[in-house]
Amino acid sequence: MSNSSRKAIVLFGHGARDERWKEPFIKIKEMIQAESAAYRVELSFLELMSPSLPEVIDQLVLEAYSDIEVIPVFLGQGGHIRKDFPAILDECQKKHPGLRLSAKPAVGENLGVLQAIAKYCTN
Amino acid sequence: MSNSSRKAIVLFGHGARDERWKEPFIKIKEMIQAESAAYRVELSFLELMSPSLPEVIDQLVLEAYSDIEVIPVFLGQGGHIRKDFPAILDECQKKHPGLRLSAKPAVGENLGVLQAIAKYCTN
Repeated sequence: MSNSSRKAIVLFGHGARDERWKEPFIKIKEMIQAESAAYRVELSFLELMSPSLPEVIDQLVLEAYSDIEVIPVFLGQGGHIRKDFPAILDECQKKHPGLRLSAKPAVGENLGVLQAIAKYCTN
Repeated sequence: MSNSSRKAIVLFGHGARDERWKEPFIKIKEMIQAESAAYRVELSFLELMSPSLPEVIDQLVLEAYSDIEVIPVFLGQGGHIRKDFPAILDECQKKHPGLRLSAKPAVGENLGVLQAIAKYCTN
């Protein structure tokens, strides 16, 4: 199976100064990979941590991935998701016009995620 | 049932300039309240949004709640959760020495929450 037929998923998080901040993101990545070897999964960050989203997309394109889906692992949708994120995606698409680049709504929009949080709050 | 026998849950989020950022937090609050009328649930924020955590705790104490659990609705644990949050909690406890004030680990530490995010990523 060539990479061009495989889909890559890029988790996009805010980033923080403390390296331990990314631990849940690493766990989510491992969960997805344990579920299916069909997915290449990478982490990327808006600020304070690396790699950035454009760096990850450049690398995946170099490795011949032609279908990349980005999932913003943000709960709330403020300026980072409504303004910064679409602008970054747009730049990446312009740099790689042949790439199938898509994005899901932020994880905080997903009912299952919110239900899991609500359940945790009362357990 | 007096308030003193009821438990209050306070969700603690980061906050953002865009008011729409708090929408998922409102949904989580509504889910918890729909599940059980036994819980009083309030939102609080670290910065950029109000009310703050100390403001909410002061108000709940005024209303005779004597058992308050705070849940940090943060995915990653960086300086906000490791330093700012314990310092704020400590101040609140000092101000209200008779209050049973407790905190859960951040939602990003919960396996069920991470699994829900991983599931969303591949759906």
